[in-house]
Amino acid sequence: MRIQVINPNTSLEMTVSIGESANKVAVANTEIIAVSPEEGVPSIEGHYDEAISAIGVLKLVQQGREQGVDGHVIACFGDPALHAAREVADAPVIGIAEAAFHMATLIATKFSIVTTLSRTKIIAEHLLHQYGFAHKCAQIRCIDLPVLDLENNEQATYQKLLENCLAAKQQDGIGAIVLGCGGMAKLAERVAAEIDIPVIDGVTAAVKLIEALHGLGIKTSKWGDYNYPEQK
Amino acid sequence: MRIQVINPNTSLEMTVSIGESANKVAVANTEIIAVSPEEGVPSIEGHYDEAISAIGVLKLVQQGREQGVDGHVIACFGDPALHAAREVADAPVIGIAEAAFHMATLIATKFSIVTTLSRTKIIAEHLLHQYGFAHKCAQIRCIDLPVLDLENNEQATYQKLLENCLAAKQQDGIGAIVLGCGGMAKLAERVAAEIDIPVIDGVTAAVKLIEALHGLGIKTSKWGDYNYPEQK
Amino acid sequence: MRIQVINPNTSLEMTVSIGESANKVAVANTEIIAVSPEEGVPSIEGHYDEAISAIGVLKLVQQGREQGVDGHVIACFGDPALHAAREVADAPVIGIAEAAFHMATLIATKFSIVTTLSRTKIIAEHLLHQYGFAHKCAQIRCIDLPVLDLENNEQATYQKLLENCLAAKQQDGIGAIVLGCGGMAKLAERVAAEIDIPVIDGVTAAVKLIEALHGLGIKTSKWGDYNYPEQK
Amino acid sequence: MRIQVINPNTSLEMTVSIGESANKVAVANTEIIAVSPEEGVPSIEGHYDEAISAIGVLKLVQQGREQGVDGHVIACFGDPALHAAREVADAPVIGIAEAAFHMATLIATKFSIVTTLSRTKIIAEHLLHQYGFAHKCAQIRCIDLPVLDLENNEQATYQKLLENCLAAKQQDGIGAIVLGCGGMAKLAERVAAEIDIPVIDGVTAAVKLIEALHGLGIKTSKWGDYNYPEQK
Amino acid sequence: MRIQVINPNTSLEMTVSIGESANKVAVANTEIIAVSPEEGVPSIEGHYDEAISAIGVLKLVQQGREQGVDGHVIACFGDPALHAAREVADAPVIGIAEAAFHMATLIATKFSIVTTLSRTKIIAEHLLHQYGFAHKCAQIRCIDLPVLDLENNEQATYQKLLENCLAAKQQDGIGAIVLGCGGMAKLAERVAAEIDIPVIDGVTAAVKLIEALHGLGIKTSKWGDYNYPEQK
Amino acid sequence: MRIQVINPNTSLEMTVSIGESANKVAVANTEIIAVSPEEGVPSIEGHYDEAISAIGVLKLVQQGREQGVDGHVIACFGDPALHAAREVADAPVIGIAEAAFHMATLIATKFSIVTTLSRTKIIAEHLLHQYGFAHKCAQIRCIDLPVLDLENNEQATYQKLLENCLAAKQQDGIGAIVLGCGGMAKLAERVAAEIDIPVIDGVTAAVKLIEALHGLGIKTSKWGDYNYPEQK
Repeated sequence: MRIQVINPNTSLEMTVSIGESANKVAVANTEIIAVSPEEGVPSIEGHYDEAISAIGVLKLVQQGREQGVDGHVIACFGDPALHAAREVADAPVIGIAEAAFHMATLIATKFSIVTTLSRTKIIAEHLLHQYGFAHKCAQIRCIDLPVLDLENNEQATYQKLLENCLAAKQQDGIGAIVLGCGGMAKLAERVAAEIDIPVIDGVTAAVKLIEALHGLGIKTSKWGDYNYPEQK
Repeated sequence: MRIQVINPNTSLEMTVSIGESANKVAVANTEIIAVSPEEGVPSIEGHYDEAISAIGVLKLVQQGREQGVDGHVIACFGDPALHAAREVADAPVIGIAEAAFHMATLIATKFSIVTTLSRTKIIAEHLLHQYGFAHKCAQIRCIDLPVLDLENNEQATYQKLLENCLAAKQQDGIGAIVLGCGGMAKLAERVAAEIDIPVIDGVTAAVKLIEALHGLGIKTSKWGDYNYPEQK
Repeated sequence: MRIQVINPNTSLEMTVSIGESANKVAVANTEIIAVSPEEGVPSIEGHYDEAISAIGVLKLVQQGREQGVDGHVIACFGDPALHAAREVADAPVIGIAEAAFHMATLIATKFSIVTTLSRTKIIAEHLLHQYGFAHKCAQIRCIDLPVLDLENNEQATYQKLLENCLAAKQQDGIGAIVLGCGGMAKLAERVAAEIDIPVIDGVTAAVKLIEALHGLGIKTSKWGDYNYPEQK
Repeated sequence: MRIQVINPNTSLEMTVSIGESANKVAVANTEIIAVSPEEGVPSIEGHYDEAISAIGVLKLVQQGREQGVDGHVIACFGDPALHAAREVADAPVIGIAEAAFHMATLIATKFSIVTTLSRTKIIAEHLLHQYGFAHKCAQIRCIDLPVLDLENNEQATYQKLLENCLAAKQQDGIGAIVLGCGGMAKLAERVAAEIDIPVIDGVTAAVKLIEALHGLGIKTSKWGDYNYPEQK
Repeated sequence: MRIQVINPNTSLEMTVSIGESANKVAVANTEIIAVSPEEGVPSIEGHYDEAISAIGVLKLVQQGREQGVDGHVIACFGDPALHAAREVADAPVIGIAEAAFHMATLIATKFSIVTTLSRTKIIAEHLLHQYGFAHKCAQIRCIDLPVLDLENNEQATYQKLLENCLAAKQQDGIGAIVLGCGGMAKLAERVAAEIDIPVIDGVTAAVKLIEALHGLGIKTSKWGDYNYPEQK
Repeated sequence: MRIQVINPNTSLEMTVSIGESANKVAVANTEIIAVSPEEGVPSIEGHYDEAISAIGVLKLVQQGREQGVDGHVIACFGDPALHAAREVADAPVIGIAEAAFHMATLIATKFSIVTTLSRTKIIAEHLLHQYGFAHKCAQIRCIDLPVLDLENNEQATYQKLLENCLAAKQQDGIGAIVLGCGGMAKLAERVAAEIDIPVIDGVTAAVKLIEALHGLGIKTSKWGDYNYPEQK
């Protein structure tokens, strides 16, 4: 099977890194196709960046569908264009925020999110509220470094991330941590090992959920509001 | 003062009709600038159409800001790109769904929505949930005719609309009706007169809310997540 | 048009100050009629004061209706007798708490309230819950000075108010502040200027919302539970 | 011990009937003092009637406190002036709506309410929402006869009540019925016997809850917002 | 009348102490039958302990029903097997967590819980959420001593309890405290006297609620999901 | 890897059938170990049956852990003893209700449940509420045939199931159907094929979720309330 992993921003380094994370967990016969839009924003750090990224995401989903992929991952923690992508696709489409939330609730009664800039906090809150997980999230913590520092300034961001995860573990009354950025995928394992608590990254979680749905023969429903877009 | 009224779809007839509705309620010294994007979708009837429309909306908001307008109305009932537009703008930005919901709750304890296609119902539900008005909406009723019929097939859509509004009045235990499409603005007064219950249209409601905020000297907050988009 | 601004307590100084605030934002041809009950409580600082004030508010609304006013503002942050007043009135009736909440949510994703005594906090919470804005209010902060100090001890209350607003700005993750007392209306502008964040006062917000509804030709719904009181 | 049962309307017949219902369930050494205000409304059928009744209720609570009663029941299904009464009282104060809701949830997972006029439905909804029982109430059914018909037209109201209770039993997926009016107290037992499902009346429920709190030595908390009203 | 008070753990000392607390508040003609299962866990401090205790609780309820008791109290703060017990019983069954929550909300607008181990916090949260009281609970505080210390190490646990109750009173903005363990019943009065705020213990609260329901002639509903278990 | 699939009732036929369903979707190298308790109830159709089944489930989980299985599925739609099982296990534990809900929300915005007896409806509601999916479930429909008819009376139950699924598809405004009983697993594919809408069965969904978690190297969190039961 083939899974299209879409990095909604234009940062190629991040696309590669996300693709690598996805590959690490995919089963042997799953091919990961990591892609990013030609045009858009280099990183997604707010409502505007997200809205702008939608068109690129949707083009890539359409392209993936034409290639006959078996699932699409939207690898940005705001799950941009998720509902729209499901109209375009027939295979399953999964956002990394929802993927991480679902997985976290299966192994802990409460989780905290550790994400990048404070201004993105509201996006996570909106998603938690819409998906129904608000009462399961104890805290959203922000390292307050820009997304691209995950590529350019890895040691410093790792340090900040670690501190925040440790604080979450000790103060929030939680059982698991959700990483709030696709670019953090590569750091999940290291953090988890260091602080000894489950750390969920949405990229890898989404890949496994796509594989799971595929194994069940379940695709995006075409009955109702996820039907293909209306032709005018 | 000048208010930019953005029709997020490319249907010029609808832009004109929305502009006229806006003009009817604007005070004497308010200039209405009705605009629509050059590229996009001719009507918005689902998640995809909405996501696609975002980029056009944001360009127009940016343009309006450069022109120094005093407020922006997003005249599609899904409030597409609302949060993103507030990052771009400094003047207030109001979506017609939220405008109608706010106004309805000021004059009735419960309202019903009458909108176009059934597939758009979930969009209204998501907004009600996010804004906090879910417990005030008794019912969402759909006339199940496409948006563009509001231009091309006015008599039939009016009839369907009327029937649904009447049913809402008689069966839903409500005090007001919210019209769920910018293209219905022109019909609000006629329906209200015919069935004798307050009928709220979001286009006109949004214009008056912009005027109200302007009169208070209150603009979109630039403290927090509505600050201008991050420069990379 | 004429708007009746009701101060539900008997403090005439506050009635005058509220009337002045209302006048500042009303459009040229709007006449503000600031009134207060002959009997009642000198300030409203709890459930009891509020319940006692209801009868005076309702008499004034009735009187305003006989005078043919175009809207009524209930200028106490507990919105006392709001639903009852809407039964008596046919013009719109708006409480200053709801007015401030509505306006705040149009320009920020989260707000904090700064109010007077701690014991009134629960009243604001009940309103937030009933109106649907609970998830948009980050914090309710109390200056813990009595309402009448706003008239008698203005410099000290201003100082306390300022400190609390600043703390809200810096610690609450918000985009706007709502002032939790009609008597604070006169201080809104000064605070906003000093701490540079939108500060919403309900008195002025309510006046503009009444003007907005009036401009839309929308009155309190007489269909359903806001119909005139049952005759026995 | 002595329990003051306050009928918030001025209908003496109803005061007597409520007092009799209270007496039936009170233990041997409990004295029921059934009272009603001298001035007010003959029946409570909306927001206005309720607001008007508050002042009479509060005077009676104050009077009861001076007499040293051990608890106060507010015997109108809207629980008018409940929070205010708790500021005035030191003994416990219980509204009949809350009493009925609490009792119903102890013996069934879901209940329906059968009440009088449709326009009072919203009052019950607001209470359910505020108290936290909204998800336990399956349905609010209205017999659509005025409150005073319970005194003047008993056979017809009983018939309507019975029909609605039966429909609730058969269609709502519930385990108990809550009667939504103090005037229905006298009919509870008869309905319960006839349709064989627990029928909860708030008057009797409130009396027993007062006795229960009294037996625990627990009074209205004077720490926090139920403290005595502020002296100005 | 006879009330069966079930201590779901096997600690006989606790059964005796709970029985004594129950007896203190029961009316003269109420006989308290304090029982505990022969097999099970010596204390209940988590999901597992609770699940394990269910079978013992249900056997005792069955036994109580055969003895014709008039009500059953499940005296563990997790309300283990509550819904199941109601299927088995025909008399009322009340858990001490729900009993305490109900009573607290009748005399204060907000309460805090003081309980034993941090790991049991989630159980209280699940109950608050299910019963509908989540918005009335300001804080859950844990003394972080095991349940059996309440028997074996009474002075130290009392001290910890007192400190936490005092902190709750001063910091949580509440009007009452709920004790989160059956073993704390005997300490309620002493704490209340020392810190002067209502302190609710669920054991005594449940006894009085059973008496109240009994006085109303209301039993567990056998219409719907609390009907006797299906025979296979 | 090895997954233990626990049928919480004692019906061996159902254990076999559930095991077969699980096997169908498991990947090649996953071994399914289908087990059921020696003692317990032959089918689970209410709160009591569920509580009784807990002890058997927990013994089996403990046994599975000693065998070193990589995950546990609790194959009854009430997810009995789920939280308790997670304390006992270190591998992931998944209930079939939660599994189905999670999967359904990944491919549709709304779903309906079709389950067995009406009296089990409340169990599904409690789970939806606790997990956070209540607003995503449009309807719970009951075929009102006992669980064991799924083994003994397959044609009739299939017919009833089909009718209810079809009604859900046509009337509920949904995109997917969740089957509300482990015994229905074997019918999922056939129903889905016949009515052409995604039909989610929790047994198969849970197996795939276990595989997914295993692939991520994520186990039940031992930090916090899912830690091993307290030793006394």
